[in-house]
Amino acid sequence: MDFDEVIDRHGTHSMKWDMMEARYGVPADTGIPMWVADMDFRAAPPIRAELEAMCAHGIYGYYGDDASYLAAIGWWMRTRHGWEVEPDWIFTTHGLVNGTALCVDTYTAPGDGVVLFTPVYHAFARVIQAAGREVVECEMANDGGRYVLDFEAWDRQMTGREKMLVLSSPHNPGGRVWTREELEGIRDFCIRHDLVLVSDEIHHDLVFPGVKHTPFALIEGVEDRLIMMTSTTKTFNIAGIHVGNVIIPDPGLRKAFAARMAALGISGNAFGFRLAEAAYSPAGAAWVDDLVGYLDGNRRLFDDAVNAIPGLASMPLESTYLAWVDFSGTGMSADEVTRRVQQEAKIAVNHGPTFGRGGETFLRFNFATPRSLVKDAVARLGEAFSDLQ
Amino acid sequence: MDFDEVIDRHGTHSMKWDMMEARYGVPADTGIPMWVADMDFRAAPPIRAELEAMCAHGIYGYYGDDASYLAAIGWWMRTRHGWEVEPDWIFTTHGLVNGTALCVDTYTAPGDGVVLFTPVYHAFARVIQAAGREVVECEMANDGGRYVLDFEAWDRQMTGREKMLVLSSPHNPGGRVWTREELEGIRDFCIRHDLVLVSDEIHHDLVFPGVKHTPFALIEGVEDRLIMMTSTTKTFNIAGIHVGNVIIPDPGLRKAFAARMAALGISGNAFGFRLAEAAYSPAGAAWVDDLVGYLDGNRRLFDDAVNAIPGLASMPLESTYLAWVDFSGTGMSADEVTRRVQQEAKIAVNHGPTFGRGGETFLRFNFATPRSLVKDAVARLGEAFSDLQ
Ligand SMILES: Cc1ncc(COP(=O)(O)O)c(C=O)c1O
Ligand SMILES: Cc1ncc(COP(=O)(O)O)c(C=O)c1O
Repeated sequence: MDFDEVIDRHGTHSMKWDMMEARYGVPADTGIPMWVADMDFRAAPPIRAELEAMCAHGIYGYYGDDASYLAAIGWWMRTRHGWEVEPDWIFTTHGLVNGTALCVDTYTAPGDGVVLFTPVYHAFARVIQAAGREVVECEMANDGGRYVLDFEAWDRQMTGREKMLVLSSPHNPGGRVWTREELEGIRDFCIRHDLVLVSDEIHHDLVFPGVKHTPFALIEGVEDRLIMMTSTTKTFNIAGIHVGNVIIPDPGLRKAFAARMAALGISGNAFGFRLAEAAYSPAGAAWVDDLVGYLDGNRRLFDDAVNAIPGLASMPLESTYLAWVDFSGTGMSADEVTRRVQQEAKIAVNHGPTFGRGGETFLRFNFATPRSLVKDAVARLGEAFSDLQ
Repeated sequence: MDFDEVIDRHGTHSMKWDMMEARYGVPADTGIPMWVADMDFRAAPPIRAELEAMCAHGIYGYYGDDASYLAAIGWWMRTRHGWEVEPDWIFTTHGLVNGTALCVDTYTAPGDGVVLFTPVYHAFARVIQAAGREVVECEMANDGGRYVLDFEAWDRQMTGREKMLVLSSPHNPGGRVWTREELEGIRDFCIRHDLVLVSDEIHHDLVFPGVKHTPFALIEGVEDRLIMMTSTTKTFNIAGIHVGNVIIPDPGLRKAFAARMAALGISGNAFGFRLAEAAYSPAGAAWVDDLVGYLDGNRRLFDDAVNAIPGLASMPLESTYLAWVDFSGTGMSADEVTRRVQQEAKIAVNHGPTFGRGGETFLRFNFATPRSLVKDAVARLGEAFSDLQ
C-alpha cells in the first residue's frame, strides 16, 4: 500500500472534507481537515476486492447467512487479541455510536447516571444526554502528559444513581492503552458501584510498537457486567459501512440486548457485512501492520514539530491517530487558539471542550493522512504561532 | 435491461437463495426461492455506475453533506408522486422495519395497542410485539378476491387503548392500491380513534398499468397525525443497503422522532446514501418503468397458470410482485398444501399465517425473477397439485 499517495476526497460525500467549511469555516479548497476520525487512505486490498466482486455481480438484495461473517470476527479476536468469542455473543449494530446508544437504552433508565472518564470521545455524552440520562464526568488526572485514573476522587463522586460506565479502551483522546492493573482497577470500581461496563475498544488494532492492548474480556471477575464493543471501521477506514460488533459473553445481559435489537428492528447492511468479513483476513492483518507503521511515522513527525512550538504540548500517544494537543502553555484564550488554527492555519480540528471536563485547553488533530499533508499542517501551525518563537 | 437473464445468486450471501434450505427445507441447488421480497434482477444502471465510482475511488469513510441526497428524494416524490417534500421532513433510518420500530418506540408506550389491517406484512407484528405493545388485528374482508376495509366492524373492536395504525399502502400482501375514498375512510378512522397513522408506502412505485397510487400526504386533514415511509430499496432492488425514509410533515411529531433518533444513535451508511441518491434519477425512473412492464408480464403468466389449477386462487394484484394465493378451495390442510409446495414443487414461499388473521389458507409467492423461473415454478405447482385436475 502506498500511504503517501494523496487521493482527492473533495466532492465525494466525505464528511471530513466536504463539511469542514460548513462546520468550522475552514475553506474547502485550501483547508486541511484533521477532525472526524477517518483516514485519507484507500481501503485494504481484500476489502476492495470484495467490493469489486459485489460491483460485478450487480444484485444488492437482502443479506443472509452470516456464519462466515461471524467466523471472521472470531478469527480476528483470537489471532490478533488472544480472545475467544462465541458466534452467538455477537450483535451487529449500525456502528458503535448506535451500539453505545443501545447499551444505554437497554441497561439504564431515564435519570440514571452514566459515568465517563473525561476528556473522552464526544459522542458518548451526546447519546447519553439525548436519552435523558445524566452524564457523570469523572475527570482523569494529567500526570505529566499522561492520563491516569483517579479512583479515590471518583469513589467520593459517586451517588448511587450511577448505573453504567462507558470506557474508551484504548482511550480517545489522549491515546492511553490501559494496563492490566488499570483495567483491574476499573473492574473493581464497577463492582464497588455496581455499574454495567461498556468497553468501547474500537481503536484496539491501532496500537503503537512496544505497547500491548488487553481486551477487557480477558480481565477476570467482570464477565457478568461486561459489554465489549469492537469494529472493523476504525482499523480499516471503512466507517461509511456503519457496522459494529457488540459482543456480550453474559447470557442475561445478552437476552436483554437481543430484546431491544428486535424491538428496534436493528440489523446490518449487506455492504457492511461483506466488507467487514473481507477485512478480518490474513491480507487485512498484513495491511493493518503496515498502516500502524506508517501512522507511527506520522505521529513522530507531528509530535516533534508541534512540541517544538513553545506553549504547545502534544500528548504522547500509545494508540489512535488522534493527537491531543494542549495549548494552555500559550496563555491564550481557547477562542484565540481556535481562531489561529482554523482561520490562519486553515486546519479543521475537534474542539477540546466537546470531550468534557479536562478538555478545555486542548484541540484534537487527526494525522491519518499522507505524510506530505501532515508536514504542511505542522508548517502552518508553526506559522500561526510564530510570534511565540 | 435484460430482465430475462438468469443471474446465479447462490453463495452470494443472498438471504433469499442462501437461506431457503435452512428456513424452509427447500434444497439450495434445485429449489426456487419465492419468499423474501427482493428481485433476481441487476440493479439499475445509475446505481451500478455509482457503485463503480465508489469502487474506483477506494475510500469509504464517514458520509457527509446529504443535501443532494435529500434533493433527490424531493425530486422523486414530486415527479413520480405529485408530492412536495421539504428536506427537513426526512429522517434516514436503517430501512423501514427499523423505521416502523422507531415509530412504535416514539409514539406509543408499552401495553398500548397498535392496529394492523390483516393479513399484512409480517414484520409489523414482529416489531410491535418485541416492543411489548399489543397487536390489534383488524381483519379485512375478502370481497370476491379483493381486500376491502370494514370500518364498521373495526369501530366496534376499538377499546380506546389503541394509539397507532400501521398501514401498508399499497398493501402487502393482496396488492391493493387504496383509492382516495378508502384513504379518506382510513383518515376518519384514525381521527375517530385518535391514532397516529404510519403509512408504509415502500411498494408505491410498483403499481400496475391503469392503477394510481395516492400518497397519504395528499389526503387532507391528517397532517398532524401522519408519518410517511418510503424507500428506494423495494423499487430498485437494493434492500441490502438498509436505508429508508421516514418523512414527517408535522413539526411536533418530527421533534419527538428526532429525539429518539438522536438517543438511539441512528444514522445512514455511505453506500446506502449514495446508491439511493443515484436511484432517484431520470435514468432510474426509466428503469422502473421497464421493470413494472416486465413484472406485469410475470404477474399475468403466474396468475393464469395458478388460477387454472382447480382450488387455487391468486388474488388480482394492483401493486407489488408478491402473489397471494388462496389454497382453501383445495380442501387440504395448510400443512399438506405447504408440504406439496415446498417438498414436492421445491418452492420456498412465505406462509400465510405469519401475516395475521385472514392469512390462514394463503401462501405468498414472489415472482420478481426471470420469466423462465416463473414458468418453471408454475409448472412445478401444476405437477404438485395434478391430482386436482
Ligand atoms: C471511541 C470511539 N467509539 C466510537 C466511534 C465511532 O463509531 P461508529 O463510527 O462505529 O459509530 C469512534 C469514532 O471516532 C470512537 O473514537
Ligand atoms: C410493507 C413493507 N414494509 C417494509 C419492508 C421492508 O423494509 P426494509 O427492508 O426497508 O426494512 C417490506 C419488505 O418486504 C414491506 O413489504
